[in-house]
Amino acid sequence: MDLRKISRDSAQTLANYLTYQAVRVVLDQLTETNPPQSLWLRDFSAQISFQQGSEDYLQHLMQANQELAFRIMTVRDHLATNIPEFLPEMVRSQVQEANLQQRKVFFERLTQTPLGPEVIHPEVHLPLDLRSLPPDRAADSAA
Amino acid sequence: MDLRKISRDSAQTLANYLTYQAVRVVLDQLTETNPPQSLWLRDFSAQISFQQGSEDYLQHLMQANQELAFRIMTVRDHLATNIPEFLPEMVRSQVQEANLQQRKVFFERLTQTPLGPEVIHPEVHLPLDLRSLPPDRAADSAA
Repeated sequence: MDLRKISRDSAQTLANYLTYQAVRVVLDQLTETNPPQSLWLRDFSAQISFQQGSEDYLQHLMQANQELAFRIMTVRDHLATNIPEFLPEMVRSQVQEANLQQRKVFFERLTQTPLGPEVIHPEVHLPLDLRSLPPDRAADSAA
Repeated sequence: MDLRKISRDSAQTLANYLTYQAVRVVLDQLTETNPPQSLWLRDFSAQISFQQGSEDYLQHLMQANQELAFRIMTVRDHLATNIPEFLPEMVRSQVQEANLQQRKVFFERLTQTPLGPEVIHPEVHLPLDLRSLPPDRAADSAA
């Protein structure tokens, strides 16, 4: 597991995402101030998607309407500058909360299913690698 | 522009992305240790995509193979815990670097195109809102 590469890729993903958010911000502004241009940008964004990356999108936009491209770049710079320093902490909390929810749903489903004698009782917290052993061997290992 | 909402959504996007990376990590590990299960997880991930969110993916996986689901949850927890504190700074640098590149490409393209008299010279750095004015009015405003 290459943590440095995953961090770099995460930063790139977030930069792409902020570009997408910048397009949304500009779209919202145009809806108020210049509805025809808002429609034009919507159409453009439906044709040139973000699938090939936000830089590709911006390069196409630069050729079609340089003013809007520069405006989106300015907004994404503003968003990136104002990302809270505690974003990593927010992500940690979200993942831990999501893991807790997944476990909760899993155990709730277990307790709602009629248990046969071959099903391990959900309150027994065996290490993960023991779960896949047949009950006899699991009991041996636990002893 | 709702910066708090954009920050929350960014954290959620990153949490989803780390789940995707966790699946990749587990796939890599299985390729080494348990190739048939690696193939199974690849097939599963092709059928249940991340399009509907990583939690939906995990819930389906929990029903199909709870051990793998728990393993992916453990890995994403590890990734989230080890996201560098300076990730926001990395994102800022990436966006600024990308903006610089976009401007460079734009001005390079401008200088390679034969300029007519009606095209503003690329070295003239007018404020964005002046670009859309006719040359006469732009000159008036700049004066």
